[in-house]
Amino acid sequence: MNTRYYLCLLCLLTPTFASADEGMWLVNQPPRELLKKKYAFELTDAWLNRAMKASIRFNNGGSGSFVSPNGLAITNHHIGSDALQKLSSKGKDLYKDGFYAKTLAGELKCPDLELNVLQEIIDVTKDVQGVIKLGMSTDDAMAARRAIMAQITKDSLAKTGLRSDIVTLYHGAQYHLYRYKKYTDVRLVMAPEHQIAFFGGDSDNFEYPRFNLDICFFRIYEDGQPAKTPDYFPFSTLGPKDGNLVFVSGHPGTTNRLETYARLLHRRDMILPYTLQMLRYREALLSQYAEKGPEPRRWAQRDLFPVANARKALTGQYHGLLDPAIMRTKFEHETALRESVDEKADAPWTRIADAQKKVRTFEKEYYMLERGDAFDSRLFRIARTLVRMKDELAKPDADRLAEYRSSGLSSLKFQLFSPAPIVKEYEQMKLAGSLYFLAEQLGAEHALTKRILAGKSIPDRAKELIGGTTLDNVNRRKVFAGEVEAPPGTSTTDSLLEFARFLDKGARILRQKFDELDEIQQQAYSDIAKIRFAKFGASIAPDATFTLRLAFGTVQGYEVDGVKLGHTTTIEMMYDRAKEQNYQQPFDLPKRWLDDRAKLDAKTPFNFVSTADTIGGNSGSPVLNRAGEFVGINFDRNRHGLVRNFVYTDHQARHISVHSQAIVESLQNLYGASELVKELTAR
Amino acid sequence: MNTRYYLCLLCLLTPTFASADEGMWLVNQPPRELLKKKYAFELTDAWLNRAMKASIRFNNGGSGSFVSPNGLAITNHHIGSDALQKLSSKGKDLYKDGFYAKTLAGELKCPDLELNVLQEIIDVTKDVQGVIKLGMSTDDAMAARRAIMAQITKDSLAKTGLRSDIVTLYHGAQYHLYRYKKYTDVRLVMAPEHQIAFFGGDSDNFEYPRFNLDICFFRIYEDGQPAKTPDYFPFSTLGPKDGNLVFVSGHPGTTNRLETYARLLHRRDMILPYTLQMLRYREALLSQYAEKGPEPRRWAQRDLFPVANARKALTGQYHGLLDPAIMRTKFEHETALRESVDEKADAPWTRIADAQKKVRTFEKEYYMLERGDAFDSRLFRIARTLVRMKDELAKPDADRLAEYRSSGLSSLKFQLFSPAPIVKEYEQMKLAGSLYFLAEQLGAEHALTKRILAGKSIPDRAKELIGGTTLDNVNRRKVFAGEVEAPPGTSTTDSLLEFARFLDKGARILRQKFDELDEIQQQAYSDIAKIRFAKFGASIAPDATFTLRLAFGTVQGYEVDGVKLGHTTTIEMMYDRAKEQNYQQPFDLPKRWLDDRAKLDAKTPFNFVSTADTIGGNSGSPVLNRAGEFVGINFDRNRHGLVRNFVYTDHQARHISVHSQAIVESLQNLYGASELVKELTAR
Repeated sequence: MNTRYYLCLLCLLTPTFASADEGMWLVNQPPRELLKKKYAFELTDAWLNRAMKASIRFNNGGSGSFVSPNGLAITNHHIGSDALQKLSSKGKDLYKDGFYAKTLAGELKCPDLELNVLQEIIDVTKDVQGVIKLGMSTDDAMAARRAIMAQITKDSLAKTGLRSDIVTLYHGAQYHLYRYKKYTDVRLVMAPEHQIAFFGGDSDNFEYPRFNLDICFFRIYEDGQPAKTPDYFPFSTLGPKDGNLVFVSGHPGTTNRLETYARLLHRRDMILPYTLQMLRYREALLSQYAEKGPEPRRWAQRDLFPVANARKALTGQYHGLLDPAIMRTKFEHETALRESVDEKADAPWTRIADAQKKVRTFEKEYYMLERGDAFDSRLFRIARTLVRMKDELAKPDADRLAEYRSSGLSSLKFQLFSPAPIVKEYEQMKLAGSLYFLAEQLGAEHALTKRILAGKSIPDRAKELIGGTTLDNVNRRKVFAGEVEAPPGTSTTDSLLEFARFLDKGARILRQKFDELDEIQQQAYSDIAKIRFAKFGASIAPDATFTLRLAFGTVQGYEVDGVKLGHTTTIEMMYDRAKEQNYQQPFDLPKRWLDDRAKLDAKTPFNFVSTADTIGGNSGSPVLNRAGEFVGINFDRNRHGLVRNFVYTDHQARHISVHSQAIVESLQNLYGASELVKELTAR
Repeated sequence: MNTRYYLCLLCLLTPTFASADEGMWLVNQPPRELLKKKYAFELTDAWLNRAMKASIRFNNGGSGSFVSPNGLAITNHHIGSDALQKLSSKGKDLYKDGFYAKTLAGELKCPDLELNVLQEIIDVTKDVQGVIKLGMSTDDAMAARRAIMAQITKDSLAKTGLRSDIVTLYHGAQYHLYRYKKYTDVRLVMAPEHQIAFFGGDSDNFEYPRFNLDICFFRIYEDGQPAKTPDYFPFSTLGPKDGNLVFVSGHPGTTNRLETYARLLHRRDMILPYTLQMLRYREALLSQYAEKGPEPRRWAQRDLFPVANARKALTGQYHGLLDPAIMRTKFEHETALRESVDEKADAPWTRIADAQKKVRTFEKEYYMLERGDAFDSRLFRIARTLVRMKDELAKPDADRLAEYRSSGLSSLKFQLFSPAPIVKEYEQMKLAGSLYFLAEQLGAEHALTKRILAGKSIPDRAKELIGGTTLDNVNRRKVFAGEVEAPPGTSTTDSLLEFARFLDKGARILRQKFDELDEIQQQAYSDIAKIRFAKFGASIAPDATFTLRLAFGTVQGYEVDGVKLGHTTTIEMMYDRAKEQNYQQPFDLPKRWLDDRAKLDAKTPFNFVSTADTIGGNSGSPVLNRAGEFVGINFDRNRHGLVRNFVYTDHQARHISVHSQAIVESLQNLYGASELVKELTAR
């Protein structure tokens, strides 16, 4: 064991961390004191308000921001990739070859991209917790909480017209109502080639030094016109310098720092091994399929990146949880907290451990049947949504499954009726592949496997299910949803709808069991949070929840095995790396980067690193300076930062961003995008 | 379910198969009658004798043959790849770029390639079975059999000087003594580029049409001179025609056709899912490591192919066992056989099923600790061999573990003291990777995991184990083996030796348990074989055992989804395929194939298919015509043939070979190897 590392972790984990840059802070509970004390920075309401209204959530799992008053938005190429793929067709591969619209008229409307911009947060903890009465059964508590949350969001939507979600914080200690402005007319403005956006590929993913132009521009429209977005981040053509204080304003997805030790063990011994097996399985399936030819590659490439990316990120998490130093520290902190209270037999830690044990007894079945790991197919997901929507919409809001409540319904339908093309051949391959995965995980004799396969061979089963569906046709989906009338003479049955219906009862039973155990854990976490608050106050930010958070840190390099890595890379260093790797995939360069190299200033900073606290979901987050200007865009962490799911450290751990200078330099000199540069840099 | 397929399988499975080309026949029990009846072919003793003495076993898992009287041998590129990699060094990559020695002096000696050529087979069934007495305990029976087998092979070695192995046939119903001439001075003569040997890569592996020049030439030396090999296969420059009868003379590795239904279920529900998880894990680990740069790629490439190849082959096997039609047929045949005898409670099928159940209770631990799945490292294997050799050589031959008996000892030492370079950085990465796999499979809290990791983090554990060993130095291995004296002042300890010693007791306990259960199964299989013989006679060939077998079939194309695939492909079709795939990896071509295309006759047959019964291990087997001439070299099966582990079918299933014309055409016109062509075609 590396002793220095251990000591360092121990000191960083002490839950006062006055001196560390830990924290994905709520914008309504900002770390003003901390910033003042450590960085002499005055976090004003105006600064915060702009950070909130100029930050964008990409509903497919990333972040972005407004960078002009005319609806221009920037995110990562790998966040825009879903839209890029859906806008592509045979012979026109925007994902691979990039895109630039010189004029508004040339901008391409994305079929199903929804963006949310936070407008307001209201603390509704008292309202939500008020309905839980002492001595209530778990079932009753769950029903009561579900009812009040449905009511609050429904009322909020009716009153404001804004998308309204309740966010559960500190695993249930706080509940906040988030109101979002929603945009669904989003158009593609510019994307570079995949090759330069993801230079170094899987090999350099989560590594540093890096050289990725991981950017993509969209424009938001309202009523057919570019939206007015007075809250935006002015673009800094200087970018950050070594040692500068920077902020990251984005939507970190999930962290597990406040989870109990028992829960972390369960994550280490069950969830992560299972998930890694699934990811490796899917990655092998997709990459072998992609080798069949250019069209299969185009279909598979969009699914491949998230799978490979998750495989690498979760591998880092798993390795972190196998590190005795990290686990010992986690154990010691929990023990200290437990010893600080009079622990009873039904202490919250025990309740969580007991619930975990119960989850284990049906967890894989839950993943397969209810989460849908056995049916990795867009068409299946559509079928299930149609089946459930029919049942759920007939119930009062409070009794519905969360995803079918009024407040989220229009977003759900926006996805459900997306005109993005669906390739049946590809769907059938993926469905068959996940059915094989089901058999492999549960066994061919498992009742669930037998029920799903119905005595057929897997290729035959996948063929009949995909062959017999018409859900690739949007109008048919609308017919089945009762939104339009069926043309006379058309079939009223569909193989996948029947299949989803056939599975639904069993799936719902698992869902119910899982949710009940989750409720028990939420209540227990809420109790732990109270103990922690009593001891440490609000000095700990809540775990990430794919909602807006503000992180801060300083731009600084680090050292690995005696080698110093600087705070930025340059364009010149990227060319050196490509050469050293013989320009072989994934180190090959797009044609324009090879041909027009002389047009670029070789010393331009390309990527840079900072200590700010980020996690998956932060992809595309703007990096801001003290003035609130855009100085870069976050796109990755390094591998040392992969343990940040469980513990913050700034020993080597960094997030990685594209430098604003590299963006301007390449747009201007390689992409002929001077109009875009003008819009970005106008003052 | 495809009914035609089902019917077809049923009819093929009927265990008389007068009309099917099933069978990997023993050369001492050849299918003379069958060949006479079906193909009017008279299998003479002279033909068989030459087939035996001109066929070569490559001890790293493949087949080959003599193709000149001066020791010239041909095998597949993918069988020669281990030697090609070991003969390479930084900047000189023979595996990738190929090799040709115009003169004898230029031929390169392989560091540790051992070839075996069968000289004689003696049936010793009576001697071996004679020592098992009625009422003996399993332990005693095992000991008695071990003793007599050790004695027979030891005596045979002493008497003939030939490598002597006893082969267990029909899972224990017959025992034959095989005597081999052994060659260890093997030199590389010619290999094409990896790219043309494996054109289409993993994507086209187990597919057809194919276009692979999967060949590699070696020359065997004795006393520093090319060996005299009067038994060789004359090279046919015509090759086979559509419908021709052909023979495959090689060393099929393993089939499971005679396994009981219970054993197949165990294979489907435990062995294959586990093994596939391991293979996918290793493939991901190695291919990500290979992306780090040219040297990592060179180190990893040799390990990558077998892993990817096995992953694809075992996936096909697994899918076969999930096919209800195949399993139903297997079940019905077993039921019929069981009903034909008076079945008692201790029937052999029950004994096998019971033994399988017991194996399950410690199977993963056995794989991890004794088979070494947790220690995927050449250095660890060396350490274990050194530790065990010391203990085993002190015992009488009969008491030793099979791999340390006198008869195989010189082959074992030839491997152990191989001067092939070992890269510690690469070894450490692989060891750490397999330790993570251990944790993932057994759990971090499992006693075995804890014992192996000793409270350390995995990177630290792998680092101390590999960092503290000197076993990469051959001389140190000889010191530890007591073959040379230690230079004064050198350390007498070694981290990996200590580690292997520390694990040995536990590993041996698992081995003992596993072998005992195996003995019970062998005895039961022997009983089943007797029942089967009584019913069907010797009309069924034994399962494959990586020993010499003769298969036969006809050259013929087949149909898939209405598309007819011809019996051969041509060079022209290969160029078309490369173009259609934009010459992108794995469809890129070596420079000479692009530059000198005009020098080739485009209509030359490239690869061809036949119905003969082959399996893994047959790679490199010569394909012979009626006259016993070399008409091609087997290198693969198609995916329809992957179920042949369990059941023979010629519905679509084919093995794939390089056509002899393609070999001559490319050697002569692209590789400037006219000397080699002259030697091959001299009469």
